[in-house]
Amino acid sequence: MQNNVFDYIRGFGLDFDLATGLSNATATHKRYLSDMRGMYADDSAFDEILKTNDPVVYEFHEMGTPEHAGDLAFGCSITYPGKVADEYFMTKGHFHTILDTAETYLCLSGHGYMLMENPEGDWSGQEFLPGRMVYVPKRYAHRSINIDLKEPLVTFFVFRADAGHDYGTIETKGYRKLLVECDGQPTFIDNPKWK
Amino acid sequence: MQNNVFDYIRGFGLDFDLATGLSNATATHKRYLSDMRGMYADDSAFDEILKTNDPVVYEFHEMGTPEHAGDLAFGCSITYPGKVADEYFMTKGHFHTILDTAETYLCLSGHGYMLMENPEGDWSGQEFLPGRMVYVPKRYAHRSINIDLKEPLVTFFVFRADAGHDYGTIETKGYRKLLVECDGQPTFIDNPKWK
Repeated sequence: MQNNVFDYIRGFGLDFDLATGLSNATATHKRYLSDMRGMYADDSAFDEILKTNDPVVYEFHEMGTPEHAGDLAFGCSITYPGKVADEYFMTKGHFHTILDTAETYLCLSGHGYMLMENPEGDWSGQEFLPGRMVYVPKRYAHRSINIDLKEPLVTFFVFRADAGHDYGTIETKGYRKLLVECDGQPTFIDNPKWK
Repeated sequence: MQNNVFDYIRGFGLDFDLATGLSNATATHKRYLSDMRGMYADDSAFDEILKTNDPVVYEFHEMGTPEHAGDLAFGCSITYPGKVADEYFMTKGHFHTILDTAETYLCLSGHGYMLMENPEGDWSGQEFLPGRMVYVPKRYAHRSINIDLKEPLVTFFVFRADAGHDYGTIETKGYRKLLVECDGQPTFIDNPKWK
């Protein structure tokens, strides 16, 4: 199914569906709820869902761009609607291994937030709506969160191809903040599991 | 009119209109036909248009991203419909000053081509349709061309913020190829002015 379109020497074109974020030219990596054990605040609600279902929480493209500082990695990230107790479906999120590299996310459809946090503990949440771009600055871990309970959150991302992904640091510590539904409104609260 | 949203240290969100490519948060730079003297093959057709009209050929965002290798410059490029004789409206195009840096363009609306050419003379044209991303590889000058005679070509671009723009080289030499309408079809032909 994978077309060999990825000519990083001479250039190429690649089709995305602007509504779904998917592409006929390449598959995505899928992350299931079971891949995210321990990341949601409510472990018993997490286990309860898994008794009957292991939904895809998000999927994203990994194009295999050469890890060169002059190349750019890109693709779409699709976070599906859902909650674990009152906590919205989200990506694991990551720092870049080369911490001093930024990333751009253009929201193509859906409604959500980008949660960002740097090693010094500064954090912010930037809203995603169609057409809204979020600039993730250097040194910030970043996680996409879908606050719409019906539609996927679809974003197109670009980052320096050698930036790398450090999932371990944020997976061990957790984010300082969670985004939960409180009285029907998305609300950032302190993460009780944060170390 | 310029909001001070551009916090490259802590991140920010920025709204684009996915149909027009424009943003309320920032203005664009406009390039008028009179800015492009000598770039179209037919100088007399060029002069003839300017007798009565000096249309905007394209406009684009320049966000003032710090020119750091870890930051990303981004924005939308909008090329308007039109022709000079049989040659479609297009951008000036440029090399990156740091030649070994790539660029991504995601087409949001319209129909056109990205014309690319490296210093050794290799060239290609990649089609733009909504949802189609073009990867401009390192070392290639690149020019957007709108082949739709009614609708603007709107793309969202991202490149390394220190890449720089070298307009002079390609402006002096010209591109090896032109894209013209021939029997109603977009057709790449040799540029008679190429030096």
